[in-house]
Formats: sequence, structure tokens, C-alpha cells
Amino acid sequence: MRVKLTVAYDGTGYQGWQIQQKGVTIQGKMEKALSRICSTNIRVHGSGRTDAGVHALGQVAHFDPPLPYRKVPWNRALNALLPSSIRVLDCAEADKEFHARFSARGKQYSYTLWTSGVSLHPQRRHFVWNTGPLDQESMQNAAHCLLGSRDFSSFMNKGTEIRDTVRTIQHICILPGLTPRETVVLIRASGFLKQMARNIVSALVQVGQKKISSRSLETVLRKRDRRLAPATAPARGLCLDFVQY
Amino acid sequence: MRVKLTVAYDGTGYQGWQIQQKGVTIQGKMEKALSRICSTNIRVHGSGRTDAGVHALGQVAHFDPPLPYRKVPWNRALNALLPSSIRVLDCAEADKEFHARFSARGKQYSYTLWTSGVSLHPQRRHFVWNTGPLDQESMQNAAHCLLGSRDFSSFMNKGTEIRDTVRTIQHICILPGLTPRETVVLIRASGFLKQMARNIVSALVQVGQKKISSRSLETVLRKRDRRLAPATAPARGLCLDFVQY
Repeated sequence: MRVKLTVAYDGTGYQGWQIQQKGVTIQGKMEKALSRICSTNIRVHGSGRTDAGVHALGQVAHFDPPLPYRKVPWNRALNALLPSSIRVLDCAEADKEFHARFSARGKQYSYTLWTSGVSLHPQRRHFVWNTGPLDQESMQNAAHCLLGSRDFSSFMNKGTEIRDTVRTIQHICILPGLTPRETVVLIRASGFLKQMARNIVSALVQVGQKKISSRSLETVLRKRDRRLAPATAPARGLCLDFVQY
Repeated sequence: MRVKLTVAYDGTGYQGWQIQQKGVTIQGKMEKALSRICSTNIRVHGSGRTDAGVHALGQVAHFDPPLPYRKVPWNRALNALLPSSIRVLDCAEADKEFHARFSARGKQYSYTLWTSGVSLHPQRRHFVWNTGPLDQESMQNAAHCLLGSRDFSSFMNKGTEIRDTVRTIQHICILPGLTPRETVVLIRASGFLKQMARNIVSALVQVGQKKISSRSLETVLRKRDRRLAPATAPARGLCLDFVQY
């Protein structure tokens, strides 16, 4: 039996999703809670890593409970043991073939920018990148040129061994955020290379700040050279909205 | 010379605005920063206390800088020393007669409720009270009966010596929150008794949950007996929006 979990978390203070040698991780917290419930070591498989400080509203993970624990109401059982910064929103029985990572057909990330001239509200400091005002029309135009199947090498950081650097962006747009002072960059794609979402946002912000043109963004994409693209945007603005299967 | 500061803070983890014998407070942090800048002990006067865990977007405070420090850009100087959970949004020279507390003519608080059947998103846990779905029309009707000048003894907790328990609510309404899953109770009044905002919200939530009727809320108000009203709502949903002078 396989169980599929939908998990939300406030990534502040975590060393990201994936278990590390040092530091507290979301996967680590979940495995600890599950292993305690099942009285045996349980491995949890996520749809992918999220970096330290990145949040999630719809991370997906799966695990295989031992036979005697098939009927546990996993969301309630896990939420009772997990810290309040991690919540299991949903649990469901999945096919034996289901795999949180390999069955994923796409993901949506949203990145929140503090685009007001007003000082960043401290209540939002762990959830936004404070860029100040941006020309959102230029950003929307630049975003448009990233649509479709492209080689996103220029927007991939090193650290993972990957051969195919082509991904398909199905949807990318600039939206009003939770408050009138915030703006959201929403990206839905077949998959994301390492820090691809944060690197794309960072480039779009430079367009919005008139530091680079929409056309030079296209050139950067075409050259497939990470050194040409702007630095990676901070983790705290990023949120994994959902995973598509 | 007197300086008026507008201050925003994430109240999570603080023992409220006012300096306490034990624990970290916002006033304490501000006095420490100001005293460091001015190389002498500086007292800061706020418009009023906020409880432990309560937030602010527009708390107002004043202080008198010593003569040699008249021209300091206080917002930048303070923000450089304060933790990121406290931000000085604005500073301005005020009349010598201005007093953050005694000159205040009114205040607005907003209280955010998580009114969705969906599990509370962990990113919002320090800023909302999770009540689940509420009948907002009943709440709006009940709120209406609190308008105007009333004796709010039933909604005042003990702990301060106050003779006049009449306050004037100028505006009280139920609004959509930052996300479709949240609802805001907004209260503007000439002043607030101890925990009055949280006690009113708690009563309105009971109306929204059909535990008490709008009519019995009126009775509670009329009886001027704290024991008749529901318990105090949690601090974390409350935010001091602004102070009127």
C-alpha cells in the first residue's frame, strides 16, 4: 500500500525539504513522525527538493506504511506529531506505481515580491523579496519569451547531474499579490532545473528595474550560459503551490 | 524637540509592546536602539500597549532626542539597529505638546480569522485564529449593535485601573482577508479597553458559529458583566492598523 500526502510548510528556519547531514529538514521531520507512528523506520519520497527557506502549499510526498498501519488517518496522526510549521493538508491511498517524484507531470511555483516604496512590513519578511517598485508591463513582456519548451541551462545552478536541460513552461505571469504592496510571479512548468524558478524571477526583476531589456533576456536564454544571467533570487519569496500528476 | 515614529512589527515571540521585568518587548528593543544612538538612556512612549503576540502596522510612539541628535534620520538609524521583526516606517518632528498616548483620538485594529474548512496554512499560523467557516451575515448584523458610544465593561479584562469604561466604536465590519480563506474583523474606535478588541472578536465568532445569537450579544453588552461574554480570542490574529491624532 502506498499513501500520497499533500504537505504545506513555512520553510523559514528549515534547511529545505531534503534530509541533510546537518540541520533540520521537512523530510526529516516527516520521517521522524511517521517512524514514530509505525514503530519502524519509514522513508518519505517528495516530489522534489525545495531549498532552505522556500515554502510550500502543495508539496506532495509518498510512503509505504507497514501492513498493521494501513487504516491510520495519516493527516491527523501526522499533524499531531509535526510542528505547526508543517501541516499535512491531505492524505489519500495511491496506486503502487505512484511515485511523488517520477509520476509528476508538472509543478507550479509562485514567487512573491514586495514592490512597494513603503518599508517592508515585518509580518511579511519571511515570505517576500523586497525589490521596490517594478515596471510590471516590461516583466510580463519578458516573461512571455520564456514560454514553451526551451533549454533553460542559463537559469540552472550547478550541483545536480542532469543531462536534459529542456523544460516546458506552460504558464508564466505577473499577478497582484496578497496585499496591494506585493506582486507575484507565477510559473507553471513540466519541471524545474536547480533553482530555475529563483533564477528566472531574478532576471525578470532586473527587467522590471530596467537594468536589462526583454531582448537581452532572450539572448541570455539562447546562449545557455549560466554566467550571463543575473544571480539567484532569495529563497524566502518562493512557494511550491502544487504538483500535477 | 519631539519625534513621532510610526512602527510596524511582527509581534510573534515578543512579550508585547511594553517593557516587562522579564522577556523581550518592542518598547525595550526600541529604547535600547535609541539609547545606543544617543549614548544616553532614552524613554519611548507608545500610543498604548499591545499584548504578547499582537502585531502592528501603524503603532505610534514618541521620544525626545537630546540636543546634539536633532538631525538624525531616525527611521534609517533605528532600522539599522533593530531586528527585522520591527521596522520604523516613518519619523517626523512633532509639537512639544504631542503625546503618542494622550493625543490619540482613535485607533483601528484588524483581526484576521482563518475561516476555511481547509487546514490552516502554516505560513499564516502566527497571524490568524483558525475558527473554520462562519456565518458572516450574522456576524455583520451582530457587529452593528456594537456601534456608537457604549459601556464596554463586558468586553474588558481585568488588570488596569480605569474609571470610564465607555468607548465609541465608529466602524466595525467583516471583510474578506488577504486570501479567500481568511476573514477580517475591522474595528475603529475612540479607544480600546484592555483586550476589548479580542473580546469583541471572540463574541462575534460565537455568533458566526451559531453558539450565541445577535440578540444575546446585545444583552451581554447591556449587562456590563465580563463573566457573561465569551473568552478572549488569541492574540496572534490581532493587528494595530493605525492610530488617529
